[in-house]
Amino acid sequence: MSKVAVVLAGCGVYDGAEINEAVLTLLSLEQQGASYQCFAPDIDQMHVINHLTGEPVPGETRNVLVEAARIARGNIADLATLDVSGFDALLVPGGFGAAKNLCNFAVAGAQMEVQEDFLRVARAFHQAGKPIGLVCIAPVMAAAICGEGTRCTIGNDPETAAAIEAMGARHLDCPVSEARIDAGRKLVTTPAYMLAGGVAEAYSGISECVKEVLALA
Amino acid sequence: MSKVAVVLAGCGVYDGAEINEAVLTLLSLEQQGASYQCFAPDIDQMHVINHLTGEPVPGETRNVLVEAARIARGNIADLATLDVSGFDALLVPGGFGAAKNLCNFAVAGAQMEVQEDFLRVARAFHQAGKPIGLVCIAPVMAAAICGEGTRCTIGNDPETAAAIEAMGARHLDCPVSEARIDAGRKLVTTPAYMLAGGVAEAYSGISECVKEVLALA
Repeated sequence: MSKVAVVLAGCGVYDGAEINEAVLTLLSLEQQGASYQCFAPDIDQMHVINHLTGEPVPGETRNVLVEAARIARGNIADLATLDVSGFDALLVPGGFGAAKNLCNFAVAGAQMEVQEDFLRVARAFHQAGKPIGLVCIAPVMAAAICGEGTRCTIGNDPETAAAIEAMGARHLDCPVSEARIDAGRKLVTTPAYMLAGGVAEAYSGISECVKEVLALA
Repeated sequence: MSKVAVVLAGCGVYDGAEINEAVLTLLSLEQQGASYQCFAPDIDQMHVINHLTGEPVPGETRNVLVEAARIARGNIADLATLDVSGFDALLVPGGFGAAKNLCNFAVAGAQMEVQEDFLRVARAFHQAGKPIGLVCIAPVMAAAICGEGTRCTIGNDPETAAAIEAMGARHLDCPVSEARIDAGRKLVTTPAYMLAGGVAEAYSGISECVKEVLALA
């Protein structure tokens, strides 16, 4: 049975992990016979968004690990403690948290930096020859993790695709129900809510992404 | 196509809607050809629980509707505005929020009261002959909504089952992958995380609950 580390960037599409994507990732892993452990960085969120209004909440602070624990029902560990030797693969759901808390793509674009703990862990998976699955917007980190020329997808958004290419990766268009695989680098990516019109569409692509990650493990 | 109202009690198992159950409910509805609209009451949560430690957070307040909007990606409305005539069925995921924000069973047990807006809406569905699905701990409200003698399940927890019977409903034991149906009252219930050991087990019962609710619609 493959054991997969799942990194969550908070809890909520606009400032954390996209909740549907996170749950569908865990569902797909269980359904396909893998076990998992959730992790998140013990850092403050970039900000807190009121998901009813879409507006930032002035003065409010939330911790990524504490909020991600809501999705994981409390069964989650500090990303800084992740021992790559104990896992066969890494999976990262999307949501703005991936582009605000795991890196700062949402504000810095192609000049982004990846969060220190996440970059170290993700590169360790890659250097150990273990597969990585990045969902939704998370593939903006493909080049930083897997190096120049890495092939990945965020669906078909031209602006985001151009930024990915500017950072040294190669973008491949992809429909919501599919995943794209860089077999040499063992990187699997799928658009999910970059394209999905609903939960079932997101599930179709995430399930495919999980299947391909487990096949490479 | 059936249109279903889904009531969310916040965002997180210990103080709001159980996130996995909520997402799996929406997934099941889409997969089975129904459409949905999410609702939540515009009230403060009973309290805020740090889901990493399991402890209440002193002095912090969160709003049920604002937090539930995280699960619904912002597409959610105030429960007070729900017009029952626009929907064919009602579905309520569980989590402690159902027992803390939609009623106060978590602290008052069989002496609980149901939140005003939720009780009015749920009774209106019942009186209109429209089916209701209650997941996990939400069936503690079965008698309050559907009347004395209503048959329902929360799995097999003896203490909760006794409280349900003390409030005038009849409890039926049920494994996690099944649902129990009171066909006369059009009430469908399933244990989900009252028994589930993981996401896939919760999905099996929730999918069954959704199927039976849609069959009664």
